[in-house]
Amino acid sequence: MSKKLTSRAADYSKWYNELVVKADLAETSAVRGCMVIKPYGYAIWEKMQAELDKMFKETGHQNAYFPLFVPKSLFEAEEKNAEGFAKECAVVTHYRLQNDPDKQGKLRVDPEARLEEELVVRPTSEAIIWNTYRNWIQSYRDLPLLINQWANVVRWEMRTRLFLRTAEFLWQEGHTAHETKAEAIAEAKLMNNVYATFVENFMAIPVIQGLKTESERFAGAEDTYCIEALMQDGKALQAGTSHFLGQNFAKAFDVKFANKEGKQDYVWATSWGVSTRLMGALIMTHSDDNGLVLPPSLAPNQVVIVPIYKSEEDLKAVTEVANSILSDLRAKGISVKYDDRTTQRPGAKFAQHELQGVPLRIAIGPKDLENRTVELARRDTLTKETVALDNLTTIIEDLLKEIQKTLFSKAKAFRDSHITEVDTFEEFKGVLENKTGFVSAHWDGTAETEDKIKELTKATIRCIPLDAKEEEGTCVLTGKPSKGRVLFAKAY
Amino acid sequence: MSKKLTSRAADYSKWYNELVVKADLAETSAVRGCMVIKPYGYAIWEKMQAELDKMFKETGHQNAYFPLFVPKSLFEAEEKNAEGFAKECAVVTHYRLQNDPDKQGKLRVDPEARLEEELVVRPTSEAIIWNTYRNWIQSYRDLPLLINQWANVVRWEMRTRLFLRTAEFLWQEGHTAHETKAEAIAEAKLMNNVYATFVENFMAIPVIQGLKTESERFAGAEDTYCIEALMQDGKALQAGTSHFLGQNFAKAFDVKFANKEGKQDYVWATSWGVSTRLMGALIMTHSDDNGLVLPPSLAPNQVVIVPIYKSEEDLKAVTEVANSILSDLRAKGISVKYDDRTTQRPGAKFAQHELQGVPLRIAIGPKDLENRTVELARRDTLTKETVALDNLTTIIEDLLKEIQKTLFSKAKAFRDSHITEVDTFEEFKGVLENKTGFVSAHWDGTAETEDKIKELTKATIRCIPLDAKEEEGTCVLTGKPSKGRVLFAKAY
Ligand SMILES: [Zn+2]
Ligand SMILES: [Zn+2]
Repeated sequence: MSKKLTSRAADYSKWYNELVVKADLAETSAVRGCMVIKPYGYAIWEKMQAELDKMFKETGHQNAYFPLFVPKSLFEAEEKNAEGFAKECAVVTHYRLQNDPDKQGKLRVDPEARLEEELVVRPTSEAIIWNTYRNWIQSYRDLPLLINQWANVVRWEMRTRLFLRTAEFLWQEGHTAHETKAEAIAEAKLMNNVYATFVENFMAIPVIQGLKTESERFAGAEDTYCIEALMQDGKALQAGTSHFLGQNFAKAFDVKFANKEGKQDYVWATSWGVSTRLMGALIMTHSDDNGLVLPPSLAPNQVVIVPIYKSEEDLKAVTEVANSILSDLRAKGISVKYDDRTTQRPGAKFAQHELQGVPLRIAIGPKDLENRTVELARRDTLTKETVALDNLTTIIEDLLKEIQKTLFSKAKAFRDSHITEVDTFEEFKGVLENKTGFVSAHWDGTAETEDKIKELTKATIRCIPLDAKEEEGTCVLTGKPSKGRVLFAKAY
Repeated sequence: MSKKLTSRAADYSKWYNELVVKADLAETSAVRGCMVIKPYGYAIWEKMQAELDKMFKETGHQNAYFPLFVPKSLFEAEEKNAEGFAKECAVVTHYRLQNDPDKQGKLRVDPEARLEEELVVRPTSEAIIWNTYRNWIQSYRDLPLLINQWANVVRWEMRTRLFLRTAEFLWQEGHTAHETKAEAIAEAKLMNNVYATFVENFMAIPVIQGLKTESERFAGAEDTYCIEALMQDGKALQAGTSHFLGQNFAKAFDVKFANKEGKQDYVWATSWGVSTRLMGALIMTHSDDNGLVLPPSLAPNQVVIVPIYKSEEDLKAVTEVANSILSDLRAKGISVKYDDRTTQRPGAKFAQHELQGVPLRIAIGPKDLENRTVELARRDTLTKETVALDNLTTIIEDLLKEIQKTLFSKAKAFRDSHITEVDTFEEFKGVLENKTGFVSAHWDGTAETEDKIKELTKATIRCIPLDAKEEEGTCVLTGKPSKGRVLFAKAY
């Protein structure tokens, strides 16, 4: 397999697809639209999970697990939600296979094992969870109920892409129940903010927090908060969403509670989720034509050590130094791997670790031993320097912090330079075609105009930024009055 | 809800079912045979996962993720495996719902969205994984391949019980590929041993390591290693299995590699798994008529502190002491909760923590403040003592270790006293009926005799213990010659 990637400039989309496979992150499977997440890709996902899980628990949430299947009658109970997902549901209709009488050694669905009620493979779990919450909630004493689930979900997509859009994906879904509307809205905002903090601090991806318009809202939500990121090709990517669900699910599933005054009332709800789609955002934000670039916080190996040697004797001496570096770095909580494979030459190892985005590479050869130095290479800048062995641990600790910061700053500078205010539709189209990125424009607030703009430009309203300032203006398409700018972009 | 459980003596099975629900571990769901794992139950499962995951990684395994669905044509490729699972498969046949033209507001399966090939919801992942491994393995350099997956699986069971037998359950499944038969067998044994170590050290459940007979083997395996535990009602429970798969899956999925001599050969395989069934084993090994008893290693809260007070002033003083205990214990890595809920009285809190198996309970009242003492209660022995505040941290550290050890010893003494050697079939039946437990008996080695014994007594061969000594004898049923004893029992 050639390790050389298509360049981003030549074909961004091809570059992405090749990188995912060549860096050993994921691959397509024998099941239409479903992916295999390979060990290296999964190790990055595990780091994301661990950090998010910690943040969820610190904000008072507990994990639980609800069934994979949703009986059709529950699925259809909240109408808007059902309508939003009905067209992409995998449906279990039978519970048994039998030998195919017509084809020896083959199986077929047993026609007598038809389910009385079809089961939908969860595309999201509001229905099954709210049906359960009905029995968990009697009084205000049972609230708030703050629960998260790590799970797989299935949405039957026709056009799929590794990590970005797959029929099955992994995610977490928070589902909370509250006494009051204000509390539920505060929770939805809080979790959107948790997502923003995680994505910015750990993934080094700057995001804009905002509200979705009605047409872009989650099916069944009253309000959808989101974090929007910008990829290197100037397209936006929704990295996480947090929904204020009002009393819609409580009403659909009859979840009432006795409030402090002893009166029965419907519960207020939120749900929020991020998925393996974040892997796509990670790749497309930082990587380059040589492959993946990983922020140190998410790198399975933050440092790799490659020995350079001709004789066995050299190797022995190098390994001794390498081992002492390993234990020094590990003592500082830095993850480091000694790549002493004998089946690969140093050049091939360098190329592989570059392709896989290891933040720092140490090479040690016989000359380094004499000088008590090592060669230290940074993945993000592709620069190398010779460094004294004595200061190595401190240098590496500082560099890892620096790389994390640099990646964020670089992505933020790119993102900030790709938010363009426009006041006419000509400018609007021009920016989308030539400069790309977010276009900040006035909009008259109607779904009709939003649709029309999408039709004309393929751009959608990514969000109404939470920090948008009030500003009188006129809609970029219709000229009707507007109270503030919203962010448009072409999106993944 | 009454907190009082049915006693084990009155109805063991009812006791179990009530305990699972009342201790807030799990409950049935709207989906036939699928359970909801509640936050408290899930927190225990997370502790198991964390420790097992660490042990898997320490033995060189990496995690990955493979699709939920298995196309029928892949599912049927390894015949024995397919035959073993065909009768309990949930099958996806359609990928879309539509509005039901006959019933307003209802959905139905869209007859035009029928899949060309049905998808089986994985009951186990050998098929999809070995179909993937074909592309991952070319040469001996790619071996061994040591991969684990944490996932949900579905086996359509007709009679289900929370944790013990559910249509959907959570598990991990290791799938490894090796150059040689010997290496694969060593891996299967190693992982069975990892399971034994985990179950004994962390769950405080003594197990017997053994080999399954042919009729009890995993469908598609050449050998199945297992760990068998004994529950308090004298029934055995298979707590984990590790399979040597020979070259069966490599042949079914054409997975060959170039060996060191450059010759093409089929790969040797193992798979191994433990599931949420371990929760059932945990409950049935240690718990008593007052509820759950948890070994400290798996307790979400190892210690709970309950304040006893009448005035606000008392509460304030108690809380001050409680906070200092909290920080002392947390500094030692002990998980501790301060239960200062105002909605419950101390008695109700005591009962709840007892029901939920918290290993140690501290109560602090005004008199304790005067004497600089606390009341310390042990869940496993239900004993209480007054302890000086000054030594509390050390006392608790020691007690947690002691409880862990005591639970194991107690379970081991029970298990050991329930392995009965018998030499006649009369004795055999007598032990099963009156004493229960494992019966160690000679068997002639045929499936026919095994079946006959099962028919007559409901007991199956749980395993041929790995440490069984050679001993000439005659089969307990047929009188034919035998080379050693095997363990029979009625089982979950
Ligand atoms: Zn937004
Ligand atoms: Zn056994």
